Amino acid sequence: MRIRSSALVALITVTLTRPVHAQSIADRYRGDANRIIDAALKDSTAWNRLAEMTEKFGNRLSGTPALEQTIDWVIDRMKEDGLQNVRGERAMVPVWVRGDESAQMVKPRIQKLPMLGLGGSIATPPDGITADVLVVGSFSDLTAKAAQASGKIVLFDVPFSNYGETVQYRARGAVAAAKVGAVGALVRSVTPNSQRTPHTGGMSYDSTVRRIPAAAITVEDAEMIHRLVDRGERVRVKLTMSAKTLPDAPSRNVMGEIVGSEKPDEVVVFGGHIDSWDVGRGAMDDGGGVVVAWEAVRLLKRLGLKPKRTIRVVGWTNEENGGRGGQAYRDAHKGEVEKHVLAIESDGGVFKPQGFSFSGSDAALDLVKQIASLLDRIDAGTIVKGGAGADIGPIVALGVPGLGLNVDGTKYFWYHHTEADTIDKLDPNDMARCVATMAVMAFVAADMPDPLPRASTETR
Amino acid sequence: MRIRSSALVALITVTLTRPVHAQSIADRYRGDANRIIDAALKDSTAWNRLAEMTEKFGNRLSGTPALEQTIDWVIDRMKEDGLQNVRGERAMVPVWVRGDESAQMVKPRIQKLPMLGLGGSIATPPDGITADVLVVGSFSDLTAKAAQASGKIVLFDVPFSNYGETVQYRARGAVAAAKVGAVGALVRSVTPNSQRTPHTGGMSYDSTVRRIPAAAITVEDAEMIHRLVDRGERVRVKLTMSAKTLPDAPSRNVMGEIVGSEKPDEVVVFGGHIDSWDVGRGAMDDGGGVVVAWEAVRLLKRLGLKPKRTIRVVGWTNEENGGRGGQAYRDAHKGEVEKHVLAIESDGGVFKPQGFSFSGSDAALDLVKQIASLLDRIDAGTIVKGGAGADIGPIVALGVPGLGLNVDGTKYFWYHHTEADTIDKLDPNDMARCVATMAVMAFVAADMPDPLPRASTETR
Repeated sequence: MRIRSSALVALITVTLTRPVHAQSIADRYRGDANRIIDAALKDSTAWNRLAEMTEKFGNRLSGTPALEQTIDWVIDRMKEDGLQNVRGERAMVPVWVRGDESAQMVKPRIQKLPMLGLGGSIATPPDGITADVLVVGSFSDLTAKAAQASGKIVLFDVPFSNYGETVQYRARGAVAAAKVGAVGALVRSVTPNSQRTPHTGGMSYDSTVRRIPAAAITVEDAEMIHRLVDRGERVRVKLTMSAKTLPDAPSRNVMGEIVGSEKPDEVVVFGGHIDSWDVGRGAMDDGGGVVVAWEAVRLLKRLGLKPKRTIRVVGWTNEENGGRGGQAYRDAHKGEVEKHVLAIESDGGVFKPQGFSFSGSDAALDLVKQIASLLDRIDAGTIVKGGAGADIGPIVALGVPGLGLNVDGTKYFWYHHTEADTIDKLDPNDMARCVATMAVMAFVAADMPDPLPRASTETR
Repeated sequence: MRIRSSALVALITVTLTRPVHAQSIADRYRGDANRIIDAALKDSTAWNRLAEMTEKFGNRLSGTPALEQTIDWVIDRMKEDGLQNVRGERAMVPVWVRGDESAQMVKPRIQKLPMLGLGGSIATPPDGITADVLVVGSFSDLTAKAAQASGKIVLFDVPFSNYGETVQYRARGAVAAAKVGAVGALVRSVTPNSQRTPHTGGMSYDSTVRRIPAAAITVEDAEMIHRLVDRGERVRVKLTMSAKTLPDAPSRNVMGEIVGSEKPDEVVVFGGHIDSWDVGRGAMDDGGGVVVAWEAVRLLKRLGLKPKRTIRVVGWTNEENGGRGGQAYRDAHKGEVEKHVLAIESDGGVFKPQGFSFSGSDAALDLVKQIASLLDRIDAGTIVKGGAGADIGPIVALGVPGLGLNVDGTKYFWYHHTEADTIDKLDPNDMARCVATMAVMAFVAADMPDPLPRASTETR
């Protein structure tokens, strides 16, 4: 284990100060934390508000009126709630429109294939693409079968292992297939569980190879086609998509604040993304992330807990197909990034919370663990090292300590990017615990005497 | 407890003979049962065959070429397997054609509602029916709100309790709604779990009231509409269906036999139904029921186990929307119903088997329990009193002892009558256990010295 000198200094500093700090932070805030938790657990407003928002407006893809109407509604409600500096900060977002689309197996028999085009895909010609299917089980399998790919639709039938790994086929499958001469790409939906449910999501092209249309089919049909081919059948599919990309359009990061009582220019920012894919109602991904942070702020206000620093709740726009909201936030707040003491994102569903992932210095990690210990009574106090969130990524990259809310993720990818991402999958008690978890972490970080120590430039 | 004299005689008879019988049946067949189980558990042919059948032909609604092609395929395969008296016995079946259909919420906002028309429903006018929605939570709630129903589409938002109870709204909802002046009926899909998945199924009309179109929407959307109404919103839905009922068409009960070595005219009949709804691939409901019985017979042949009585495997037609296969079987075999010593049906999915439900005399129940004890080593030996199966119902009503295979039903209704009824939900080991369970029961019942005692006319 190699310890850099700066890290060693930090370590020594923390070790020397820890007893005093540990005592003071945990003890100082135990009473407030317990009040927050007790009040949160009695309240199902978060669930009700998320139900209302997602059912009033439906899904909220970048560029749609539904997204902007939702943002307007949030602004109105945040003002009613008495938040300060409520506003939408402009961000230009990509506009991808799905249009009509379908997939059908035409050989060895006619079978409609439930599908969703991947976000960013081009259209097929109006009459669709009809081609034989080449089934592959991995990128290396595609390489091995490259000679057979020309003129085919490549189907990536890759079982779910974990999201980060399996999503590569959704993101990069079209490029890999095009490189070996395929005319279309189909991916098995990225999920461990299916009820014949296609899952959409982003994909990207590459300037070195021609663009081919790409869509997700269901686990069931990917496996069926694979078995038909294994039985010696020739499988032929007709894919028809009319997707198009329009010029960028204006959207907004929506936000409101409790302005700090002593250090109003220092900021804890937290929230989720207000946009969603164009299926389901974006309850888990990620209306819930916005609503639990928002409810956390309302709860602090209701309890009269006024932190020394500013707490800012944000619904970032365009996480799903561009990440422009997070970038726009970084750019708009460039002058105050140094004053951001912590950024927290919830974008993994608002199921039963477990704690946070942390990106930042070891010294800050130590303090974050102390704060999190206040959440042990609801089993939400576990801190692990790792990523934080896509929307806060741009400012975390500039040195802002970042936390990502971790929840019981057992079922998250069952519904992720599908028509089934709806409020009924969420439990009001779990959401109330998420509110408590977000509120305790944000409040203590915003109120404690010293800001969380940042990583030195060298160790970032 | 009142004991009828005939039952008392039966009880005494059994009690007197039980030690000998119990000893002889269990002991006599333990070796054979163990051979059957051991061989079945090593074999995944049932799963593979069901995959092939359901993926080659897809779903199999009565009146479709796919159903008749499947029956032809089964006949060819049964002949290849060396079964005897392989044949299709004619049955005339109803022909209901779904056609194009859709549902859309048009107020308070536009939202497509995934839906499936209910089997037997009439069409809407070509332009659909657009009406305000009246949400009710039960038949009695509908009665209470009867004055508001005229001209509305009634939505039965009834959470799943158990199938028998909840399915009443699917079966009878249209009649109840029409009686209070509604123009259409929507039912919440009959399921405890949903991924925005509509579930179809049969419904019926009543000659006393006008026919209105009926469809299932998803749990998610039923709950959403209910909440929207509770929030004071006016919800309006457009329902468009083009379903029609054509003249009855010929289909067949498909069957093959192992002819008994000593009493060929005495029969154990078992199987499932070969038809399915027109969604998914009918793997659970009920291709699996046919295949496990068929594989049981193949297994007995492979092991050289030739029973004294005839074992007949049947794939009944038209269970789903008519029950004509079971009736046709009864009618075609009227002369030999007295010679049917046992009828066994598997129509609850071929998940991990637990045992059987039994319909028949207490004396027969006692013997069935003795046979089932041979299945205790795979935890499939539990016999409960109750129904047996829809297809064997007509002959069970005439006095044939009936058994219905019971399995772990945890997930059956997740997929029931949906696009998700596909082979991937089934486990090859579970199916192998079903084969073992069906084979042991059928073989012993077909081979033991005396037939299962029937209920006296008085106690039936």
